[in-house]
Amino acid sequence: MTEFKKTPRNKVKRLPKRGHYDHETIFGILDAGFLCHVGFVANGQPFVIPTAYGRDGDKIYLHGSSKSRMLSSLGGGIPVCLTVTHLDGLVLARSAFHHSMNYRSAVIFGTAQEVEGEEKERALFLISESILKGRWDEVRGPNAQEMKATSVLCVTIEEASAKIRTGPPGDDEEDYALPIWAGVLPMRLMPGEPMADPLLREGIPLPGSVREVRGEE
Amino acid sequence: MTEFKKTPRNKVKRLPKRGHYDHETIFGILDAGFLCHVGFVANGQPFVIPTAYGRDGDKIYLHGSSKSRMLSSLGGGIPVCLTVTHLDGLVLARSAFHHSMNYRSAVIFGTAQEVEGEEKERALFLISESILKGRWDEVRGPNAQEMKATSVLCVTIEEASAKIRTGPPGDDEEDYALPIWAGVLPMRLMPGEPMADPLLREGIPLPGSVREVRGEE
Repeated sequence: MTEFKKTPRNKVKRLPKRGHYDHETIFGILDAGFLCHVGFVANGQPFVIPTAYGRDGDKIYLHGSSKSRMLSSLGGGIPVCLTVTHLDGLVLARSAFHHSMNYRSAVIFGTAQEVEGEEKERALFLISESILKGRWDEVRGPNAQEMKATSVLCVTIEEASAKIRTGPPGDDEEDYALPIWAGVLPMRLMPGEPMADPLLREGIPLPGSVREVRGEE
Repeated sequence: MTEFKKTPRNKVKRLPKRGHYDHETIFGILDAGFLCHVGFVANGQPFVIPTAYGRDGDKIYLHGSSKSRMLSSLGGGIPVCLTVTHLDGLVLARSAFHHSMNYRSAVIFGTAQEVEGEEKERALFLISESILKGRWDEVRGPNAQEMKATSVLCVTIEEASAKIRTGPPGDDEEDYALPIWAGVLPMRLMPGEPMADPLLREGIPLPGSVREVRGEE
């Protein structure tokens, strides 16, 4: 089992039993999502911005307009913290105090570097695949002008940790006798009914990418 | 319409038409969620940590163990950035370049202060209500020891902005002729089937809070 090194920066201090440092767990959490929250510092002020990502090994790719504040700040090679959170359920205990959430989160530390050429093209494909698998091959790919208007950053993971909670609530011994319902209410990000573009030409069927994510094939 | 002041810190630079500064829009985004990503700086390093929150006017409350790194760092009155993101849909265009997401996000700037006494109790109630309305009144409330083990921080909003995208994709004129499906795949965080605690006493029905959030009453 390959692990990221535990340091003062990435060590899970609170409830350390929920902490994980192995690649498999951390990459699994990254691969289960496509939206992260990116933290960086500008003039001593922290900023946290939601954005899409893709992964290739220990590299995480972000993209955006060449004009974006986040991308131009990060492109300077400053430290970045990138967090991915999946909420899996509300943990409903008998006491207010023991309420909790089931979740999987990964916190990544590194610095960002702008990438170009083949790596940039592959990164855009990976980000697209992480959002909706198969979509890239269904659409018109980027032309030279669009590539120029897009910046891609690579964050190589220096340190990382995951924190996971699963399972039912844990109540105080004496509270189990209380006539209060306890358990877990699972939560999941679900796709709804696709809404065709009002300008869609007639006779174009729902694509495989959408049918697949909706469990229709 | 009351607005937060636009400053270099909170101004939406990229796609400014998606930016909003009025209280109603920003508070609406905050009230539609209960999980935020908190950004702060320690030793020049940004950290981004997911946590629950509750709101009261222009105050946002966070809670956690008195021993948590995040809470003890923030309690020192350092600048904090608090971001709430709702993903509403995948925007599927005819070209890779015009793919996007529909979302509502709010970015809040302020500093945190620890609160005690009545404000602390009310804050815990507000956080609980934001996670699952009505749950607080169904369970055993916190005792003195539990209150002591819990820290509550208040972030008064100094500056804030929201960014929102809605609607269908916008493609390049010549791409509308392509035989490629385009539209929006709505996404939503949905509650699943409640899972009773294996240690639940027999004969305890599902509580009103859970039935309500599942649309069963």
